[in-house]
Amino acid sequence: MDPDGGRVPDTISGALAAVGPIDAAWADRAAARQGRLTMPPGSLGRLLELGRQLSGLQRTDRPTGHPALVAVFAADHGVAAAGVSAYPQAVTGQMVANYLRGGAAVNVLARRAGAEVRVADLGVVNREAFAGDGLTGRLHAHRVGDGTANFLEGPAMSRADAFRAFLVGLDLGARWAGGEGFRVVALGEMGIGNSTTAAALVAALTGAPAGAVVGRGTGVDEKTLVRKRAAVGVAVERHLRDSADVWDVLARLGGFEILGLAGLAVAAARERALVVLDGFISSTAGLVAARVCPAVLGSLVAAHVGPEPGHRVALDAMALRPLLDLGLRLGEGTGAALALPLIASAADLLREMATFDDAGVSGPVAGAGPG
Amino acid sequence: MDPDGGRVPDTISGALAAVGPIDAAWADRAAARQGRLTMPPGSLGRLLELGRQLSGLQRTDRPTGHPALVAVFAADHGVAAAGVSAYPQAVTGQMVANYLRGGAAVNVLARRAGAEVRVADLGVVNREAFAGDGLTGRLHAHRVGDGTANFLEGPAMSRADAFRAFLVGLDLGARWAGGEGFRVVALGEMGIGNSTTAAALVAALTGAPAGAVVGRGTGVDEKTLVRKRAAVGVAVERHLRDSADVWDVLARLGGFEILGLAGLAVAAARERALVVLDGFISSTAGLVAARVCPAVLGSLVAAHVGPEPGHRVALDAMALRPLLDLGLRLGEGTGAALALPLIASAADLLREMATFDDAGVSGPVAGAGPG
Repeated sequence: MDPDGGRVPDTISGALAAVGPIDAAWADRAAARQGRLTMPPGSLGRLLELGRQLSGLQRTDRPTGHPALVAVFAADHGVAAAGVSAYPQAVTGQMVANYLRGGAAVNVLARRAGAEVRVADLGVVNREAFAGDGLTGRLHAHRVGDGTANFLEGPAMSRADAFRAFLVGLDLGARWAGGEGFRVVALGEMGIGNSTTAAALVAALTGAPAGAVVGRGTGVDEKTLVRKRAAVGVAVERHLRDSADVWDVLARLGGFEILGLAGLAVAAARERALVVLDGFISSTAGLVAARVCPAVLGSLVAAHVGPEPGHRVALDAMALRPLLDLGLRLGEGTGAALALPLIASAADLLREMATFDDAGVSGPVAGAGPG
Repeated sequence: MDPDGGRVPDTISGALAAVGPIDAAWADRAAARQGRLTMPPGSLGRLLELGRQLSGLQRTDRPTGHPALVAVFAADHGVAAAGVSAYPQAVTGQMVANYLRGGAAVNVLARRAGAEVRVADLGVVNREAFAGDGLTGRLHAHRVGDGTANFLEGPAMSRADAFRAFLVGLDLGARWAGGEGFRVVALGEMGIGNSTTAAALVAALTGAPAGAVVGRGTGVDEKTLVRKRAAVGVAVERHLRDSADVWDVLARLGGFEILGLAGLAVAAARERALVVLDGFISSTAGLVAARVCPAVLGSLVAAHVGPEPGHRVALDAMALRPLLDLGLRLGEGTGAALALPLIASAADLLREMATFDDAGVSGPVAGAGPG
């Protein structure tokens, strides 16, 4: 292991310490305003909660859901060599090219939501796939390595590389949520094999058995699923035994894109942006962020829950309730992109709705409610 | 009872007979196209189902979710005199004014979704509320009467008025979905007391006991809830006994806006538009439409399910699964407006995503899946 990798770098520990809580006074002011808007109290349910979260983050009772960004972090996983995916490793790079050309599901859904898509390469093996067509000019290249090693056989990466991956996200988050002012940052990802990596991380970070977190990913068959479960269970146990702290666990089991997204979540939370979790892998990145920086939880929202069993485990570990439940299991940031109009709508209500006074609408009859 | 009201008018029976089924061949072509798009098969769950439904309706594998309309039908309910609502009856007209000025939740949410809001008065008592400010120019005035009568004491309306209310919706639907070409029509409503009317209709049409369908509406207290349940149970039993057919039931228990929305659903389905149900009252209108015209079911989608207990009963009676579950209980078309971006997104995917061939992305590894 890299000897420089021992101590958590000051840039990381500084960022973790700089994340502040939701501003409860502004959340309360938003709640008071919601009570004056022309609707029965509480009648827009989760949208009102979202509005208060945005207000608490943005320190205003007129929050906004824009500008919004879907960040797609891509990297390859050594564990793919164990045949844990239905797709060949080359697909990671091919899909990066697809994102850069705007033809993937996440591009389509982000366009509809009025959000920008930005793609970062943290360690994709098949770089040839996006080398041509002037695509690289649109790519954020911050490669930590040529994919991770296979964690079924040894550590996925060095501790130093785990810090490097996290720092990529911290830096990009500071630029995007800080410098450019994105108020909503969705975590998307691509990496053949990364549902196996996410399962290992969630098992290690929550204590859940491998059987509860390993699923079919993009669609492996029953035989592959059984092999995946057994291998992950053994590997998690071994790596947990050999880990001195959470960063050791993240290095031994992690993926570059997952640790990068965790860094992005922390940086966005520090800039008081809302951080939108997507599927199982993205939610695992949120869990990683929350484990190294509990204050990040105030900035997180879970866009959806899908059929991958570990997804629910990861969300439960953060006490997050998903906004959508539509059987989505694609990743990329697609579920998060679908939730962006809900988030923007929650903000719109606080900015644009008339109050009872403005509109000359009568309140409840005395004694009849509202209950 | 009005003797002219006896027979179902030919305009209505003709419209009911003219609603066609989903075009299965086009839905199949859409499914085949979805299988070629750059994502694991089936990995966007409910969005893919929505895409196939739109394709089957629009007879294309490149469907669209636009233009979209939220129709807000408003009317008053005699049963409000029994103290079943937390709000005074004057609020129906005040909220109509609010919709016409663009300040209500449905206006805000429809703007975000890129949908138009149209407001129709089918029998609002407090017309003074929207008489000034040039608002009436924007209102579709098709009054069937000055609110319904109290169904706890007698029939809510004559059989002839039930036909009239239904015809208002049929006519507006023919203009909007036919003439103007709206491809998505969401059913919104306003009417103080109308959750009690909806509860009575759902109980009568499904056989569910009043206790299973009567809820707090906009927020009545426990005492009011108990009174509401008992009164609805007794009235439903009496009116069912006195009804010769489903139109008698609709006349005796119905509301002008609910029957109007049922007519709108039928007309929109005849024009092969997607009909989006909102909350409990809107879903009751969908159920009314499905009972007089089962073919309408192919055009329906349930935007959400809320805490009002009858909402789930109504959706189950149509075997519809809601897209959203966000604790919404406002009505107006708000939940339907929130679902419009999901619907538009489902169409976008079929129109805009790259195929595996286009994008040069590899398919699954032989033997590993997709499962």
